[in-house]
This record gives sequence, structure tokens and C-alpha cells, in this order.
Amino acid sequence: MSMNQLIERIAALQNPTVAGLDPKLDYVPEYLRKEAFASTDDPLEGAARALLAFNKGLIDQLWDIVPAVKPQAAYYEMYGWQGMRTLHETISYAHEKGMYVIIDGKRNDIGSTMEAYATAHLGKTLVEGRPVPAFNGDCLTVNGYLGSDGIAPLLKICNEEDKGIFVLVKTSNPSSGELQDRKIGEKTIYETMAEMCEKWGGMAPGSYGYTAVGAVVGATYPEQLRELRAKAPSTFFLVPGYGAQGGGAADVAGAFDRNGLGAVINSSRGIMCAYQKAGCDAHEYALAARKEALRMKDDIMSEVKEIRLP
Amino acid sequence: MSMNQLIERIAALQNPTVAGLDPKLDYVPEYLRKEAFASTDDPLEGAARALLAFNKGLIDQLWDIVPAVKPQAAYYEMYGWQGMRTLHETISYAHEKGMYVIIDGKRNDIGSTMEAYATAHLGKTLVEGRPVPAFNGDCLTVNGYLGSDGIAPLLKICNEEDKGIFVLVKTSNPSSGELQDRKIGEKTIYETMAEMCEKWGGMAPGSYGYTAVGAVVGATYPEQLRELRAKAPSTFFLVPGYGAQGGGAADVAGAFDRNGLGAVINSSRGIMCAYQKAGCDAHEYALAARKEALRMKDDIMSEVKEIRLP
Repeated sequence: MSMNQLIERIAALQNPTVAGLDPKLDYVPEYLRKEAFASTDDPLEGAARALLAFNKGLIDQLWDIVPAVKPQAAYYEMYGWQGMRTLHETISYAHEKGMYVIIDGKRNDIGSTMEAYATAHLGKTLVEGRPVPAFNGDCLTVNGYLGSDGIAPLLKICNEEDKGIFVLVKTSNPSSGELQDRKIGEKTIYETMAEMCEKWGGMAPGSYGYTAVGAVVGATYPEQLRELRAKAPSTFFLVPGYGAQGGGAADVAGAFDRNGLGAVINSSRGIMCAYQKAGCDAHEYALAARKEALRMKDDIMSEVKEIRLP
Repeated sequence: MSMNQLIERIAALQNPTVAGLDPKLDYVPEYLRKEAFASTDDPLEGAARALLAFNKGLIDQLWDIVPAVKPQAAYYEMYGWQGMRTLHETISYAHEKGMYVIIDGKRNDIGSTMEAYATAHLGKTLVEGRPVPAFNGDCLTVNGYLGSDGIAPLLKICNEEDKGIFVLVKTSNPSSGELQDRKIGEKTIYETMAEMCEKWGGMAPGSYGYTAVGAVVGATYPEQLRELRAKAPSTFFLVPGYGAQGGGAADVAGAFDRNGLGAVINSSRGIMCAYQKAGCDAHEYALAARKEALRMKDDIMSEVKEIRLP
């Protein structure tokens, strides 16, 4: 699916949010863990099965109201190759349900190695002359520290396979300013990176005023969000930091354009762990996630009002 | 294994090099590919088996002369979770042979997510109360764009599990200067990053004058290598870009201190694909790799002369 299709899904559902699937084993209800570990003696295999069951339950309750999921690669790698199989199966399942999938991997490297990452997460691997998708995401988060060499192979796949990327610009963490806020002449590093996104986006055009090259800008820095919305008008934003990290609807309002487009707001723990907070039966974890996803949608739409395709 | 043990192995073998294991299927001799694809119908499974056989053959010929291997995660991810299993099995096999393993993943994220990457690649994952290593590298390459929040969880594991990291400082690619050479006040971004490495290293001390926090500095920028060796005296360098990317022995000479320590020089394609260049029988690919590894060692030692533990 292309970034255009993400935008269309956002408009159709009137919901500019994405559910982060960062499934630590601690988040998985005991009954699912018990079932999974009863089926195998291998601890990582058991963990991988538990996470897949957890994710499928969440997707079943989210696909008709939330346009996209964002699995965070770290939480799958943590459970070894078995965890990576769960990442693959989660992506397939989300696609079956029509959801857009952003792999949050923050990958970065140069030339042929970046090409390998692009192939792994967005493209098709050539195996004895046969193209096979490896993880098959629709979009990948990437780190631009290495410059254009690291982005060029991604632009190629964005164009050829109709995929997208989000480049880290201003991250949501407290220490993001240590490097990102430092000034190169008149401009901060994050502004410089946003300008690079606009430039790269010119090489991977899209529709509705946005390119296939987006940017990650944290909800925890509302001023910078507003500033960057103005300075990078054709760059779609992925906004982490809503909810658990402290950002609210008013904080993310500046990320949207006058059509209510321009950003997708992520919540991970807030949705995955809603059942713990609500103190409800663990068997109802997915229903609790649905309720929280609807609450978050209403919260953000109270600022955005309406999403229109131009 | 700790960074100290890498240094000891380098001194014992009088060889400051690391063999990059970036196994694209194209590099694998036909006889190994045939064997692997005859054993399964699944293309990614076949690829994963072929890569593992290729890697094991290389390790068999390298373990007694080269101190370390550096598998590049991208080339395993490209073959899906099956490829990630091969990454895991390659690391186990290298450890059996006593080699130090640097996972080249350039991972980066914040807080709990970076903790998950650190656990995945260097630590042990807690599964129902039981600590299980997932990929079990000795060292991980990381990207510091997100600042200290992204590095703190790694320092914790470096200290607790005696592991190490290499932070990207000045990468070997042509466009590395687009961001890294820009000036923040008087200093370039790569100098600023090197200073951050020295600071982080202070929180993860080691022996022989170096900390557990190293830096990636490309062989293709010899002046910057020399400059950074002086400015970051307790930061061990991982130096890519020798051979295929154009760096020679004279270019990397500045990376070493007066004891001949301070750096480990990587070659990937040069070693893996030596058999193609030498035009020898593909069955002899591992022997060709050994010859090239010895040639590279002699080449670099012609500059370094002798490696002494202080």
C-alpha cells in the first residue's frame, strides 16, 4: 500500500491515528501466555506464539476503526528469530484485514546495505531469480544521519513498489535536543533534516499534497511540530509521544494542515495495555484496546474537526 | 565477550581486522546454493540454509587468524525470519570457534525500545522469569542521533553483561558529510558525536586505555580518522571502507595508537568474494577468503608494525 492509501484510509475512517504494536511479554494477558507456553518447550518459541495471539486479538478489534498499525521491530527482535517470524505473521494478518503497516525499525546504512534493508522491509528479495517479500511492510521508519546515500535506495523502492518512509526529524524523547536542537549556522539540525525530507520527497512524489517521504516528529514538542508543519508542507508526519509519553490532543493539533491531513498520531502502550488501566478482565484486553482507540480518535478529532481529501 | 577480550584477541593474533559477514545470495557458490535449495521448497528457507553453510565455511577458515566477525543485520533481514535464524546460528558458530561477534545493526531508538534492542542483540530476554539470549552478540553498532536516552540502556548492558557498542561518528560513504561535516559552532557534528562517545565511555569503563563505547569511523576519510584518534583517545574505532570501498593500509594508519591498538579494520566483500576475484574453484571459496584475510593482515601490519598490550 502507498502513502496515498494511508491518507485515503485516514479520511475514510476519519481517524488520523496508528496503533503501535510493541508487544512485550508483560503486556500479554496470562491466559494467552499459558496457552502459548503449554504448546512448546522453547521459551522464545512460546513467547513468539503468545505475542502473535495477542497481536491478532488486537487487530481483530482495531481494523475497522484504526487505519494503520506500527509494529516496533525491537520488541520482535528481543524474542529472537522466532519473534521476527511473529513480526512477519503480524504484518500478513494486518494486511488481510486491510490495515496499512508501518514497520518502526529506524533502519540506516549506506548504499548496498541500505538497499538490503529496503528490500527486507518494503521490497522483494530475489531468490534464485524469484522475487519474494521478506517482511512486506508498507512503510519503514529510517534514520537519516548517513545522508542521501542511505536514503536513495529507499526512494527507489518507494517509487517502484509504491511504498513510503518516515525519516527521524525531531524525536519525542527528553534528550532529543542534545544533537537535534543544535544549530548549524541559522538552522537547527532537525530543521536541516526536515529540509532534506522535502528534497528527498521531491524524488518520490505522492498525492493529496504529500510525498512518499514522511518525517517522525514527537508529540512532546508541540511548538516544533507547528513550526515544521509550516516548513515542510509536503512531508507527512508520524507523531509518537501521545498518551504514555505525555502528549495530548492540543499538543498534536499543529501537525495537521487545514484539510485535517498531514499527520498520523501513534499510541502504543495506551492501546495495548488499556485493559490493565481500566482494570477489566484480561480476556477483554482487545475490547479495552478498541475503546481506548475510539477515545483517542475522539480526543484528536476534537482538535482536527474534519478530515477532507483535497 | 567484552571489548577487552577483543583487544586481547587482536594482540594475540597480531591482527587488527574483522571479517564482515554480509552474505548476499549472489556471493554464495553455486554448489552450496544447489544443496540448500534441494533440501526445501521454501525460497527464504533455502536462502537461509545456503547462507549458513557459506558462513560456516568462512568461519572454519578464519577463526584462527582473524579475531572477530561482523555480520551485517540487513543481509539477514533481507531473507526474512529464516535469515534472522541464520544470523543467530552464525553467531553461535563463531562463538564456538572463539571469535568476537560485532552485530552491525546501527540500531537506535529511545528508552524502553532501545532497551529492547540492547536486550535483543547483547543481553538476555526475560521469558516467564527465565533469562534467554536472543541473538547474543558481543557488540552492536548503534546510531546516536537520538542522544543519551538512546545510549543509556546500552551502557547498562555493557556494564552488566560485559558487552560493547560502536556509535556511528563519521561513516565511510560519499554523502556522510551532508550532515556529519556540518558545523555546530566551532565543531563538526562528527566531532560532537565523538565527544559524546568519550562521555558515554566514561560510564562504561574498560581496560588497555579504551572503554566499552567505540566509534565507527570510515577508512575513506583518513584525515578525520587521525583527527578523531587524537580527540577521542579512549574510544576504540571500528573502521569500515577498507578494500572494496577504496581505503588502503596507509589510509587507516592514523586510527591506531602508539601501541598499535585503538582500531579494528573491517573487510566484507573483499574477504567473502575473494574466490571470485582470484578466479579459483568455487569449492575453494573459504580458502580464498583465508588467503585474502592474511594478505589484508600483512598489508595493515606493514603500517602498524606491532601490537602491544600496555
